Amino acid sequence: MILTLALVESALQLVPQQIQSHPQIKRYAERRSKSPNEVLLDRAFHDAAMRKLAQVGYSTPVEKMGRPDIVHNALLQVLETPLNWEGHLRVLVHTQGNYVIRINPKVRLPKNYVRFVGLIEQLFAEKRVPKENDSLLTIEKCNLLALVRKLGATKVIGFSRLGKPASMKMVAGQTSGLKNPLILIGAFPRGHFTDETRRLTDEIYSVDREPLDAWVVAGRFVYDVEWALGLEQSRVSPGKVTRT
Amino acid sequence: MILTLALVESALQLVPQQIQSHPQIKRYAERRSKSPNEVLLDRAFHDAAMRKLAQVGYSTPVEKMGRPDIVHNALLQVLETPLNWEGHLRVLVHTQGNYVIRINPKVRLPKNYVRFVGLIEQLFAEKRVPKENDSLLTIEKCNLLALVRKLGATKVIGFSRLGKPASMKMVAGQTSGLKNPLILIGAFPRGHFTDETRRLTDEIYSVDREPLDAWVVAGRFVYDVEWALGLEQSRVSPGKVTRT
Repeated sequence: MILTLALVESALQLVPQQIQSHPQIKRYAERRSKSPNEVLLDRAFHDAAMRKLAQVGYSTPVEKMGRPDIVHNALLQVLETPLNWEGHLRVLVHTQGNYVIRINPKVRLPKNYVRFVGLIEQLFAEKRVPKENDSLLTIEKCNLLALVRKLGATKVIGFSRLGKPASMKMVAGQTSGLKNPLILIGAFPRGHFTDETRRLTDEIYSVDREPLDAWVVAGRFVYDVEWALGLEQSRVSPGKVTRT
Repeated sequence: MILTLALVESALQLVPQQIQSHPQIKRYAERRSKSPNEVLLDRAFHDAAMRKLAQVGYSTPVEKMGRPDIVHNALLQVLETPLNWEGHLRVLVHTQGNYVIRINPKVRLPKNYVRFVGLIEQLFAEKRVPKENDSLLTIEKCNLLALVRKLGATKVIGFSRLGKPASMKMVAGQTSGLKNPLILIGAFPRGHFTDETRRLTDEIYSVDREPLDAWVVAGRFVYDVEWALGLEQSRVSPGKVTRT
């Protein structure tokens, strides 16, 4: 069983063309010795510019944008786990603006946020990092519909506060019995899946009555799937052979 | 039941006096319009200066130091959770250099790392943030022994790869039956608890045969305690009354 975990509609994108000449963006890019079209949009630093973006009628609601830290935290929570080490996890990032980042399971991501942002900016510029054949990260233009079709998942499950109330352990138990399930977790700060995303799911579940951060949902789900597969039991006793 | 979760020997401290005049530190502080004695040590930016620190025989091994991101990530993983929302969690940060940061459960920490670092630097300077009576964060000089005595915990449990192999769910089940348990999680990048820390624990458990990041351990343990207390079951059905 390989679980594909996709962070979707992720609030991770380059600064949109419409605000690249905004003084706040220009100052920020200059301080980092980059061009305004090479830096990631980040609410923590571009709040004024983002409010301008709302005024020009940008397609995505501005309150869903500019939070690369959400992807970073979610990735840190799932990549260094027994589920990944045992070869049961594939992680993808679908972004606002429809790029898809593929992540080699062997990657060791920068833990430091500033370094992570630099790495993703490099990825947008060079399309693969490192540039050699067995890249650890690659990026391509691809919308979610095309991605889901390409993956050929046996079942597509989303997590959303607007979904059907369910225990995450129940969902994980069910998922771990499938050959090639795809889990969608929204990696944006506010709001809900677009209709387009919703239509791609077979089921949507809500695992708490309050919204949970994407990194909490991702980390907990990976842990529950490990449990459903028996990884914890096989890994805690020294000397035991590990299931793969 | 209130679980006290302490991140201990955390790799979060101001730049030590011994390297405050190092050119790398001076440039970094200047770029951030601060003095060298006001900024947090961060391996991602101070690697050369930290190697100097090793040469002057600093008390803590340098490979355990300079990673405030570990505390940040672990806090993000545990504070916005049902366990905290339902009043069952108290979180403390004990740092290398023996400071203790107390965290008001109502705090909403900056999700952005750069903002978090700025906040902690402000905390070191002002001792409480905000400065009014019901501060969200406070800091005081206090070693771990004094902290553990003050807390009067019914049981002190540590997680470490050198501990006794155990299922985390078993530990959480046992812990959730206690009135005032204290959990110690090391928030440093490499190495193990000091002897001093080890002596304060009643039990030390290893929950995987590989070392796990502090934020993974913290997030999973909080989730397991929620489960042991029945929070998931009580919160997923809309209309149900929540246990507190």
